[in-house]
Amino acid sequence: VLHAGGAIADQETVSALGEFGLIAELSAWLPPDRRALVGIGDDAAVLAAPDGRVVASTDFLLEGRHFRRDWSSARDVGRKAAARSLIDVAAMGAVPTGLLVALAVPGDLPVSWARGLAEGLAAECARAGAAVIGGDTARADSVLLVTTVLGDLAGRAPVLRSGAAPGDLVAVAGTLGHAGAGLALLSAGHPDDPLTAAQRHPVPPYDAGPQAADLGATAMIDISDGLLADLGHIAAASGVLIDLSSDRLAPDKDLLAAARFFGGRTFRGSTPEHLQALTWVLSGGEDHALAATFKPDVALPPGWTVIGTVQEGLGVLVDGQAWTGSAGWDHFSG
Amino acid sequence: VLHAGGAIADQETVSALGEFGLIAELSAWLPPDRRALVGIGDDAAVLAAPDGRVVASTDFLLEGRHFRRDWSSARDVGRKAAARSLIDVAAMGAVPTGLLVALAVPGDLPVSWARGLAEGLAAECARAGAAVIGGDTARADSVLLVTTVLGDLAGRAPVLRSGAAPGDLVAVAGTLGHAGAGLALLSAGHPDDPLTAAQRHPVPPYDAGPQAADLGATAMIDISDGLLADLGHIAAASGVLIDLSSDRLAPDKDLLAAARFFGGRTFRGSTPEHLQALTWVLSGGEDHALAATFKPDVALPPGWTVIGTVQEGLGVLVDGQAWTGSAGWDHFSG
Repeated sequence: VLHAGGAIADQETVSALGEFGLIAELSAWLPPDRRALVGIGDDAAVLAAPDGRVVASTDFLLEGRHFRRDWSSARDVGRKAAARSLIDVAAMGAVPTGLLVALAVPGDLPVSWARGLAEGLAAECARAGAAVIGGDTARADSVLLVTTVLGDLAGRAPVLRSGAAPGDLVAVAGTLGHAGAGLALLSAGHPDDPLTAAQRHPVPPYDAGPQAADLGATAMIDISDGLLADLGHIAAASGVLIDLSSDRLAPDKDLLAAARFFGGRTFRGSTPEHLQALTWVLSGGEDHALAATFKPDVALPPGWTVIGTVQEGLGVLVDGQAWTGSAGWDHFSG
Repeated sequence: VLHAGGAIADQETVSALGEFGLIAELSAWLPPDRRALVGIGDDAAVLAAPDGRVVASTDFLLEGRHFRRDWSSARDVGRKAAARSLIDVAAMGAVPTGLLVALAVPGDLPVSWARGLAEGLAAECARAGAAVIGGDTARADSVLLVTTVLGDLAGRAPVLRSGAAPGDLVAVAGTLGHAGAGLALLSAGHPDDPLTAAQRHPVPPYDAGPQAADLGATAMIDISDGLLADLGHIAAASGVLIDLSSDRLAPDKDLLAAARFFGGRTFRGSTPEHLQALTWVLSGGEDHALAATFKPDVALPPGWTVIGTVQEGLGVLVDGQAWTGSAGWDHFSG
């Protein structure tokens, strides 16, 4: 902690604060962590990597593409940036340990917004058992983050996309479709619907990743672009066909309520509510659930739901047929 | 390697290629590495971290701020982005092992430019003994990179900024002032001067970092903002005064030639050539030399030059006096 947070007036801008001032302000809101042997403030951080291997992934979070400042609080944006990265490590079967954050902001951004962002980053890292260990700042016309997550496998073999085999089960942990429905609701001017929270800050099931690895998961992926699209990556990498059962993917009452709200308005006029809700489940992105394949004799704990099977062939089907609804998911484009 | 590079017409744009096409194209130019246990193409990479600790740092490289496409080739930009990050790990006394690259580009960027960038990243990583192990792509109005470097300490204690003590020697490895002079030459329309190469792609002394750690360096930093500014960080973190000897910092003939070219034009009319050249040595950034402090009985190998001493007090002096020339270095602002 470089100086006490909160000493700076909320209305002060990042531009008035300067680069070193901004770093000091952000650092004040990022708690140190015992695994960070060297934390923020030197040329590089040093993080414990007890396994002898480190898992690493880097992700953009862009204003206008992944969030809007008029829809999301600074804290929401921090949580979302961290969540999107942290779950990538869990999807390998590892425990997230550290996060590096490159943050570019407009000069007229209020310092209070940057502080909220740091709080959100710290809060989501704490949920996952990780900590912010370093970063960089710059100026840009809009808010831009690049988060790099590091994680520890604790002796596990990494779970790749390429290990699924015919006969395996397909299962998911976490919610599906809420963030997609939330985006539709925000776009339609209904920010108070409970589902919009899922779009503002997803709640990925971090623990389910290492758990799946311990259960012998043969393949795993983070659902960021939509269930069909991301299972398509497993199918392609593994050279298999995945067949999903729509009755295992029944939309919950929140999704059905949202679908009723939209009726036939944003989708084809003849689409029944259930099909609309199912489309969010199959194609909605940004919930950051985990999908994994397991040997058929696995005993899955609560939190995991079997949704299909792996077969000979290539691609992804629903009830044995190609899905003819909205097939992919064209990322948030505010 | 996802597909053979070079199959795509040079004039094709990134926009026509699409995100997955761009990633495939970049991957084709990034050689796999044995330390990347899992490389590009899964949710995260897995890198060997034999020491049980991992060193990590993240850096922006922004068009207009750190490079200009009309001054630098794509390969230069890739080399510079990698170099700026890789040396941060060396400055902790560690060996760089992996690099993650987040790349945002305009849609009308030629694919050939992206390919050149990947070649430059790979070439500089190879110089340092590291490899590109992962990344992300996005669209932006100008080219933007965020590079995250990982490194291994191989049993060494990390060398911090805070360990310098009165009585220590101050030494540097690598060139000083060339990149700053190169920027002045490029700005003045003299792109063919040999010094401009140092601005386009610095050549940091990666091996000198672990070497200094092995020699018992008490503090170390990468010279990115200028010698005085960066030694100021060591002085502040260590609570010491650093006194430099100007006769140990004598500008080389290339810098003196460049200073003669500028004469009194860009600096105060009365400034002699030597003072102009010395200003580049003391205040020019982006050469990415290393500065370190050592116990006075150290036997420094070739490549390291003693330039001053550590004393009681606080701050950085030149020949016992505050430097009154250009004190800081206001980063490239093309």
